[in-house]
Amino acid sequence: MQLLKQKVLDEGIVLSNQVLKVDSFLNHQMDPVLMKEVGREFTRRFAGEAVNRVLTIESSGIAPGIMTALELEVPMIFARKQKSLTLRDDIFVEKVYSFTKQETNEITVAKKFIQPGDRVLIIDDFLANGEAAFGLARIVEQAGATVAGIGIVIEKAFQPGGRLLKEAGYRVESLVRVAALDDGKVTFADQD
Amino acid sequence: MQLLKQKVLDEGIVLSNQVLKVDSFLNHQMDPVLMKEVGREFTRRFAGEAVNRVLTIESSGIAPGIMTALELEVPMIFARKQKSLTLRDDIFVEKVYSFTKQETNEITVAKKFIQPGDRVLIIDDFLANGEAAFGLARIVEQAGATVAGIGIVIEKAFQPGGRLLKEAGYRVESLVRVAALDDGKVTFADQD
Repeated sequence: MQLLKQKVLDEGIVLSNQVLKVDSFLNHQMDPVLMKEVGREFTRRFAGEAVNRVLTIESSGIAPGIMTALELEVPMIFARKQKSLTLRDDIFVEKVYSFTKQETNEITVAKKFIQPGDRVLIIDDFLANGEAAFGLARIVEQAGATVAGIGIVIEKAFQPGGRLLKEAGYRVESLVRVAALDDGKVTFADQD
Repeated sequence: MQLLKQKVLDEGIVLSNQVLKVDSFLNHQMDPVLMKEVGREFTRRFAGEAVNRVLTIESSGIAPGIMTALELEVPMIFARKQKSLTLRDDIFVEKVYSFTKQETNEITVAKKFIQPGDRVLIIDDFLANGEAAFGLARIVEQAGATVAGIGIVIEKAFQPGGRLLKEAGYRVESLVRVAALDDGKVTFADQD
């Protein structure tokens, strides 16, 4: 997605060879016009997948998620992150490890919002090791629903998440794939 | 806002005379078409205010915030909530007490995203005691910017937040004002 690539080049800050900061348009300040285009692009890519639910995770997944849901004309659900939790029988719970924060969170979704037979499109802002996406996919499968696809705004293709999700059989569409963050510079993977 | 009132009547769950649960369209599952209408309505109400930034707070403020920012064609910033924080000189920090959770969070915004002279529209999903809205307003004022207005999706008008914010001089626009939650029933305030 050319518009997004340009935004990464113009405003992305390479903090290390692992960390790309995009807080001016994706995960603190957000560019609503760009988010709308992101929603359109995911809708185009997953047009044949009969999606009837979008599932994302707080907080930075919500803006691209709601814009995708708007284009698809389906409801969006965002999973909540919590440090620890009293178990309840009306919610799905999965553990998700964050390599960035080096902590495990529990992510939760109310059972009533994902039903057997649903075709759920998972949306998230970043894909690195794939922990969050796998956690969301496990929730969809706990519900007896189907993962219709996984849409990622920025994939760090030098980390294993994308490969692992594809090996697990999921269709992954990343709008921008970053191949490397060496010498303070963003290099994109070929396919963009 | 009639559409929203109807949604509250159809899907809102009165858990007690203090708590209205709207997790099917506002703060867990979200209705993107309704969120778009919410953004349009805030834009109509604050049309004369020369807003150049929308500020909200994670997580449930993000969807109405981004839709309002899209209509206004301005950037949106969401404040982050944290339990405690190492002080840094590149962020604004305010303490916000949550009556619901009975805990104090620090909310933060990177300084670079709000500048002196900015006219900031604060958007949030709920208004009860006004703690979050006051915290966001203090951040705007720390930045030397102006609060152009405060837009609330659902105000619990039987709690003091709306009155306190108006007494402090802010323009508050609530799309729906709930007057009472007695006997498991939602009663709206007259002005809707």
